Amino acid sequence: MSKIKLTFPDDSVKEFDEGTTTLDVAKSISTSLGKKAVAGKLNDTLVDLERPIKQDAKIEIISGEDKEDALKVLRNTAALVFSAAAKSFKKDLHFGEKQANDDGFYVDTDSKEGQISVDELKEIKALMNKIIKNNDKIERSMMDKDKLVEMFKDDPYKSSLIGAIESVQIPVYTLDGFVDFGYDAVLTNLKALKHFELLSVAGAYWQGKSSNPMLQRIYATAFYKEDGLEADLKRRAEIKERDHRTIGRDLDLFFVDPEVGAGLPYWMPNGATIRRVIERYIVDKEVAWGYQHVYTPILMNLNAYKTSGHWAHYREDMFPPMDMGDGEMLELRPMNCPSHIQIYKHHNRSYRDLPLRIAELGMMHRYEKSGALSGLQRVREMTLNDGHTFVALDQIQEEFKRTLQLMVEVYKDFDINDYTFRLSYRDPANTEKYFDDDEMWNRSQSMLKAAMDDLGLKYYEAEGEAAFYGPKLDVQTKTALGNEETLSTIQLDFMQPEKFQLTYVGSDGEDHRPVMIHRGIVSTMERFIAYLIEIYKGAFPTWLAPTQVRIIPVNQKLHTEYANEVLSELRAKNIRAEIDDRDEKMGYKIRDSQTMKIPYTVVIGDEEAKNATVSVRKYGEDDSASENAKMFVSSVVADIANFSRKDVTDKSDNKD
Amino acid sequence: MSKIKLTFPDDSVKEFDEGTTTLDVAKSISTSLGKKAVAGKLNDTLVDLERPIKQDAKIEIISGEDKEDALKVLRNTAALVFSAAAKSFKKDLHFGEKQANDDGFYVDTDSKEGQISVDELKEIKALMNKIIKNNDKIERSMMDKDKLVEMFKDDPYKSSLIGAIESVQIPVYTLDGFVDFGYDAVLTNLKALKHFELLSVAGAYWQGKSSNPMLQRIYATAFYKEDGLEADLKRRAEIKERDHRTIGRDLDLFFVDPEVGAGLPYWMPNGATIRRVIERYIVDKEVAWGYQHVYTPILMNLNAYKTSGHWAHYREDMFPPMDMGDGEMLELRPMNCPSHIQIYKHHNRSYRDLPLRIAELGMMHRYEKSGALSGLQRVREMTLNDGHTFVALDQIQEEFKRTLQLMVEVYKDFDINDYTFRLSYRDPANTEKYFDDDEMWNRSQSMLKAAMDDLGLKYYEAEGEAAFYGPKLDVQTKTALGNEETLSTIQLDFMQPEKFQLTYVGSDGEDHRPVMIHRGIVSTMERFIAYLIEIYKGAFPTWLAPTQVRIIPVNQKLHTEYANEVLSELRAKNIRAEIDDRDEKMGYKIRDSQTMKIPYTVVIGDEEAKNATVSVRKYGEDDSASENAKMFVSSVVADIANFSRKDVTDKSDNKD
Repeated sequence: MSKIKLTFPDDSVKEFDEGTTTLDVAKSISTSLGKKAVAGKLNDTLVDLERPIKQDAKIEIISGEDKEDALKVLRNTAALVFSAAAKSFKKDLHFGEKQANDDGFYVDTDSKEGQISVDELKEIKALMNKIIKNNDKIERSMMDKDKLVEMFKDDPYKSSLIGAIESVQIPVYTLDGFVDFGYDAVLTNLKALKHFELLSVAGAYWQGKSSNPMLQRIYATAFYKEDGLEADLKRRAEIKERDHRTIGRDLDLFFVDPEVGAGLPYWMPNGATIRRVIERYIVDKEVAWGYQHVYTPILMNLNAYKTSGHWAHYREDMFPPMDMGDGEMLELRPMNCPSHIQIYKHHNRSYRDLPLRIAELGMMHRYEKSGALSGLQRVREMTLNDGHTFVALDQIQEEFKRTLQLMVEVYKDFDINDYTFRLSYRDPANTEKYFDDDEMWNRSQSMLKAAMDDLGLKYYEAEGEAAFYGPKLDVQTKTALGNEETLSTIQLDFMQPEKFQLTYVGSDGEDHRPVMIHRGIVSTMERFIAYLIEIYKGAFPTWLAPTQVRIIPVNQKLHTEYANEVLSELRAKNIRAEIDDRDEKMGYKIRDSQTMKIPYTVVIGDEEAKNATVSVRKYGEDDSASENAKMFVSSVVADIANFSRKDVTDKSDNKD
Repeated sequence: MSKIKLTFPDDSVKEFDEGTTTLDVAKSISTSLGKKAVAGKLNDTLVDLERPIKQDAKIEIISGEDKEDALKVLRNTAALVFSAAAKSFKKDLHFGEKQANDDGFYVDTDSKEGQISVDELKEIKALMNKIIKNNDKIERSMMDKDKLVEMFKDDPYKSSLIGAIESVQIPVYTLDGFVDFGYDAVLTNLKALKHFELLSVAGAYWQGKSSNPMLQRIYATAFYKEDGLEADLKRRAEIKERDHRTIGRDLDLFFVDPEVGAGLPYWMPNGATIRRVIERYIVDKEVAWGYQHVYTPILMNLNAYKTSGHWAHYREDMFPPMDMGDGEMLELRPMNCPSHIQIYKHHNRSYRDLPLRIAELGMMHRYEKSGALSGLQRVREMTLNDGHTFVALDQIQEEFKRTLQLMVEVYKDFDINDYTFRLSYRDPANTEKYFDDDEMWNRSQSMLKAAMDDLGLKYYEAEGEAAFYGPKLDVQTKTALGNEETLSTIQLDFMQPEKFQLTYVGSDGEDHRPVMIHRGIVSTMERFIAYLIEIYKGAFPTWLAPTQVRIIPVNQKLHTEYANEVLSELRAKNIRAEIDDRDEKMGYKIRDSQTMKIPYTVVIGDEEAKNATVSVRKYGEDDSASENAKMFVSSVVADIANFSRKDVTDKSDNKD
């Protein structure tokens, strides 16, 4: 029998008989490793423990304690057991694609009998446990592709999947009479599969294409240990509780209908109110800080994006251009900078005009693959709180500092506290990758750093993270789900002023090139509000809440008059108040007001009408308190003022 | 000699020799007519006075007193004289298209030597007068097309124009050695050409296509009588003074650059401020009146416009669809109704939800030919103050009335007084042309009429002016330039609820079909602000003015501190104030503030700083008055409140 050489992670090399398995190798090292091993990794590819090894290779033995790979093997196994159980439960079930990954696993299914319900998942889970109890082994064998094609000839999904495999011999797995393929490695021994859960059901297009049939995707997960599963289920419950898509639906904030337009959200009145309040807030704030707000068209001649370089480097994120005839090609803008450059160029500029701060709630369109779209978080149409400041080189530090101050002030108003600053420089070892002006880079990077130090802000420096066109500061936050996200950004740009030949007349009477600062404070309305929904868990502070006060008359007939009086007083102070005059019991109405997370629920009965009081219950509190009605109105006004405009005072430097 | 029969406007018929001319015919009627005649009209086509008539025809003799046609002949003549004069002035001048019409005439020109300046127009006018003095006749002759082609072979524009003519024999006009063609009729006798003016110069693409070279269009006019010319020049001066494009440029409100995008306006900070104030005003007003404001995407799957019928009937006003892959075609919306229908459909609706009032500042895109585009008046991207109310049939009258009340209130706030109401019904003689539901039409038309009468509003009824899908009310205004324009509209729509299968559950528990009411109060931001610019002549009332107060310190060093104090007090009250700290003389600054039509100009010197006063000059007044500074701030606050929100009180009916 010929020999093969296996190289271990520590670079030691050993000889084994050809046809040896990872399990044999593990056992040869130690009995305990033989017991713990769950799969092998040959030349960085996961393989079944009992698969014969036929040539020299790098080998790694995956034990149950090696997190990522070991979990993948376990979840592959769970997916196979699930499929066998589901097939025995629904005879006509077909299977599409499947995947096991860090987050769990899924299997796509299709049935003419009717789709799998959440209740049926419980029955399937019981069947899985039965299979695990009765069968201790999954059989693995190699099968000729032709034979497999014949076996699945009536199954369009499997036929298509087999067609995509290149090899002539395909590993096939058999469990309890059920035959399947397409796993890199499974546990042959089923005993380790104890802690798993079938989580949810959702629609998914076959192979991810919306023109294909919709299949049913079963989401599930599996762990080696009980506490792993428990922690994960807890995490999932928390995600669900904070998921902006769930809250968005429950509070009737927005919806997306892929049939009408993928990634194109509709803002219902409640969500639109929040957005409107934020839009007005940030525009007023910026105007007070010396920004000049403009409206510019969302379409532009494609030539402008050729000049800017977006068409060359960013085309696949852009929408298809529209041919308007007469040789004009129009493009939905993916960015607002070329538009603000038009504003700059519309007049001859002098050093007296700088810093020139142009801002806009700018609508943009970016092409995202339909699979990447998610609620308000990832969309194709978005409105960015965008701003571009044109400065002289020696104004960079002061303007950067000022922008930071504005940013910090805004974060305070939204009660955003959990963020870090990342200062991104060019890579000093690869300066040729960047816009070519050493002095500009050196001066501006040190100005950015000096501004941060000046304000006493903590930050970390990241060499090589700058944009091609200049250094930048990113504000990184964590979403409630733990994902890192850039909330705000301040970027210097030496390149666009060059490409568009921008100039200003200096005090020396000569033409100079300005530097552009791109900045977004609250990012896009879509992403920012998705973020706020998650950090607030839908319980918006009073100044942002779609309905700030809901009034519930104890008796529709007796108390409506006084309820209307209170309503008028609230509305006279621009408070978003409403009366719940539905034909429902009071208990239901109070609960509903809590469910909708309305900051103030006000109950009005005989006592209140007689004494000109209101019975107020704040969101999240169990008790209500009686208050003089006028005092109550004043307290709501103060509450709103406190969370919103308290710092909107004049910060501009009196520029025209 | 053979005879021909000529039929006169009074249907009398007379015989003449073949080859007779209109001049002969006129003389045969009376000597005075022979003198007054300037052209003939044969079978409704204008012809030269001395052109031989070769067959039977309807004839009309155009005298200098017949306005439209006579002026056209005069202006044709002036265009020919202008061309001859211009050619003698600039030897390499080429001519493109020309036109004489109601409004005057124009001639397109091109020269390699450099374009014609406004000053040179004066010299050309003098040359024209010289030609008129020296030549009393234009020679007319027929020329073979081949010969004409040869004559103009080096002139690309003329060659192209000759190529487009179908006849073999072409009438050619010779004046002072200058040869031209392409006039339907000119005055052979030049003595009548006395009162003309060369008005202005503008760019125009050859044959109106933006891919063609840009020529220079000379605008001019001519009249038979001196007072006609004088009145016209006065009218033009007035138009210029009110033209929203001129004012828009002078006050730096907006600009359009066809190179970047035809019909796509850029709102500069001043114009953007006006727009923002109006947007907030109308949204707040509508919310107070029970509208629920939303944001909906400006893109939609093309299928929705196929369902709505827009794609079938309105396609040529729509932008080209975009192919997103995966079989998805997206369309820039030309209207917001299908979007608001999505909002309606997102929930199951009951009679308790009605009237459901959905509103939005909805951006739309409509394809307009580039020649039709004009400033903010005719654009391709626009934002409509749009609203759709879904009502039960028996709610039409009340809701229609309520919408009218809102409209009248808004007009009052903008001081719009010059408008008429037009109630448009279906044509009772052609009911088959309309949506097929007699009862619905009869009931709804009488409800509209009853509502108008109820409110005591004057209106006129127009049978046959209704839309296909329902009756409507249009509010017609006149622009400062005298053009009639629809400012607001309320339209009933029975059809879209049918096409999109909209329903609500009635109090009877059954499904019913709602009626949709489309309405726009202040129309599009673009058109409305163009209208306001013209009626205000750019002098916006304080609440809308981009800058409300401009402060001028007498001495930059001595008075800036106090100026800043006053500025802070103004800004603390949300007044848009600024200090003019430019290095200019005080007189210049005061004049500039008037030129920019700023409502309040405040001068601050020693006296003011000492006494805590301000010296205030209101826009349009010659004198300034001293006022206590705090009193001044209060008076500006009152001025703003008075012209804006005075009637924004709660008008909603407490619907959730």
